[in-house]
Amino acid sequence: MRTQVKNRKRALFELLRKSCLDAYLATNPADWFYLSGFTGEAGALVASSESMTLVTDSRFTAQARAEMGEGRVVQQKGALFSAVGGVLSAKGWRRVGYDPNSLTVAQLGVLRKTAGRGCSMVQAPGVVQALRGRKDASELAQMRKAAILASEVMESGIRMLKPGVRELEIAAEIEYRMRKGGGSAPAFETIVAFGERAALPHARPTSKRLRKNELVVLDLGVILGHYCSDITRTVFAGRAPRRVREWHRAVQEAQEAAISAARAGVACEAVDAAARRVLASYKLDQFFIHSTGHGLGLEVHEEPRIAKGQKRLLEEGNVITIEPGVYVEGVGGIRIEDDVAIQRNGTEILTRGTRNLIEL
Amino acid sequence: MRTQVKNRKRALFELLRKSCLDAYLATNPADWFYLSGFTGEAGALVASSESMTLVTDSRFTAQARAEMGEGRVVQQKGALFSAVGGVLSAKGWRRVGYDPNSLTVAQLGVLRKTAGRGCSMVQAPGVVQALRGRKDASELAQMRKAAILASEVMESGIRMLKPGVRELEIAAEIEYRMRKGGGSAPAFETIVAFGERAALPHARPTSKRLRKNELVVLDLGVILGHYCSDITRTVFAGRAPRRVREWHRAVQEAQEAAISAARAGVACEAVDAAARRVLASYKLDQFFIHSTGHGLGLEVHEEPRIAKGQKRLLEEGNVITIEPGVYVEGVGGIRIEDDVAIQRNGTEILTRGTRNLIEL
Repeated sequence: MRTQVKNRKRALFELLRKSCLDAYLATNPADWFYLSGFTGEAGALVASSESMTLVTDSRFTAQARAEMGEGRVVQQKGALFSAVGGVLSAKGWRRVGYDPNSLTVAQLGVLRKTAGRGCSMVQAPGVVQALRGRKDASELAQMRKAAILASEVMESGIRMLKPGVRELEIAAEIEYRMRKGGGSAPAFETIVAFGERAALPHARPTSKRLRKNELVVLDLGVILGHYCSDITRTVFAGRAPRRVREWHRAVQEAQEAAISAARAGVACEAVDAAARRVLASYKLDQFFIHSTGHGLGLEVHEEPRIAKGQKRLLEEGNVITIEPGVYVEGVGGIRIEDDVAIQRNGTEILTRGTRNLIEL
Repeated sequence: MRTQVKNRKRALFELLRKSCLDAYLATNPADWFYLSGFTGEAGALVASSESMTLVTDSRFTAQARAEMGEGRVVQQKGALFSAVGGVLSAKGWRRVGYDPNSLTVAQLGVLRKTAGRGCSMVQAPGVVQALRGRKDASELAQMRKAAILASEVMESGIRMLKPGVRELEIAAEIEYRMRKGGGSAPAFETIVAFGERAALPHARPTSKRLRKNELVVLDLGVILGHYCSDITRTVFAGRAPRRVREWHRAVQEAQEAAISAARAGVACEAVDAAARRVLASYKLDQFFIHSTGHGLGLEVHEEPRIAKGQKRLLEEGNVITIEPGVYVEGVGGIRIEDDVAIQRNGTEILTRGTRNLIEL
């Protein structure tokens, strides 16, 4: 960890230098963990090439000192951002970068009042996120483990499906198995959607019972050693009718096409388009109502986005989901999702398990 | 639900009128759920006395139409806040309020570009939070259920404690029981801290095993029907030595004093001071390193804060936690926490179960 953190800091300082920034303020927990190892829920990290200072409250100072290694821990007396402003002012920095996507308007207001007249707060969007997008070997190793655990939990979730069972029961069992497997939490609220409810891409589990001949969408992810996984499979509770088989085949081919398209140097929008093209050939593209995927790492949704209009190029070390779907209101939905690591020469699919339609 | 939502809107419009605001932009999920019933994870709600408009993406539009009842659902084409700006511009409003504590700097930047020159975005901090602080009868009924479920889960968590068990196993069982009891998720990452780790107020569960004669802090909460609960109990794995008994007695008396002090019309800082005064009489106040409590509702930490310097008065309908503690680095910690509803004439303790030191 220590070596990785050093490399990350070096990469950050290089970016700061290029942007003529004296320091960077990280206010997103994933960003500060990435740069310092601090796992607490409240605080802010100020990083410059000379010093790292974490400001946090009394609940987290002992933990911060243990986790940070080098670097200073400042225990705030009053409000967090007044204390951060005090640190900036004491350092006498003139240009401090921050991420406008994670700093609130109120926080910026406090900083402007407390950081001193000489200090300009400069928008520097996505600086740490860009670094986080390129996973190093130790991060990839951890993401592999998280993906394998999610795949195992998916398998046991599928085995629990039988007519009469409730969505909420399946969700409870799934999240229990995540925990038993060492996960610290679900990466997002587990989706267990039966029948018509499978047409809602983000259905919350309810007390609805599974009936014969319904579609089931299971979408789950686990946080293991701080890193997220995300997998979706679709099941039919019975022998699937022709229409459902065709939908599933279309989604499966769309996913294969997108995975094949995903390569270092390829634009994210091209991966999205590959999935959409296949669905269009089945006349199902109007039922694919979300983007093809998203970056995955310390957060479950991070850069890069695999969507229309995303001109950004995939890079070695990116980990993304590929998850096309088809949703028909009143009938149900189908989605297949895997986690894919972009490597120098090709890709590695981190998640496991058949992508064929599973019939109960 | 419909009647409550109407009352809430009426109260909001009264506040808007007083602040000369034409409309209010709610960007916090708890705020928009409170005003509209929409449970999706992405979107923004624009409320005026003439109209309610929810802007969200294609994953959530079907769900939004089903949940919102009256009110318009706009499906964003591009970025969320460009679409919101478009709505504001089309309405021709001149003053639109927003919460600077939940809007990011980047979001405000997009709104300023897209809402049109005639539209001023006006900081209106905590408007919906203030309404949310005064729970109505239906909310209190739901919070009672959430608190009782948390208390039951606590009881079964305590029963599982025995030497050799791991923190993570207990956390897994606890969260499983929340789900089986109908909860949608833990209200926060469950805290299971054995021995020295109990000295960290926000310890994450690890694979550490419980040994004889260690302190155990269990702090858990569940979201049930959208409302949060939060309870803490302290256990000693064996017969507690005199020192631990005295610490526990001090914390228990501090909690009782704070609960007795909590009344409509009393300043939040006075409730905090009541707990601190008792701990000072035991010379333990320097070991109480956090505030006495926080508001509880759709979010696990909301207004009012029960802390030093909080001059705000408690009101009928507030639900707060009272959770003094004592933390001794290298030894362990003690915390006792219950959820308390402020009523017209007195208080109601929503959580259950003995507050005495539990010895295994």
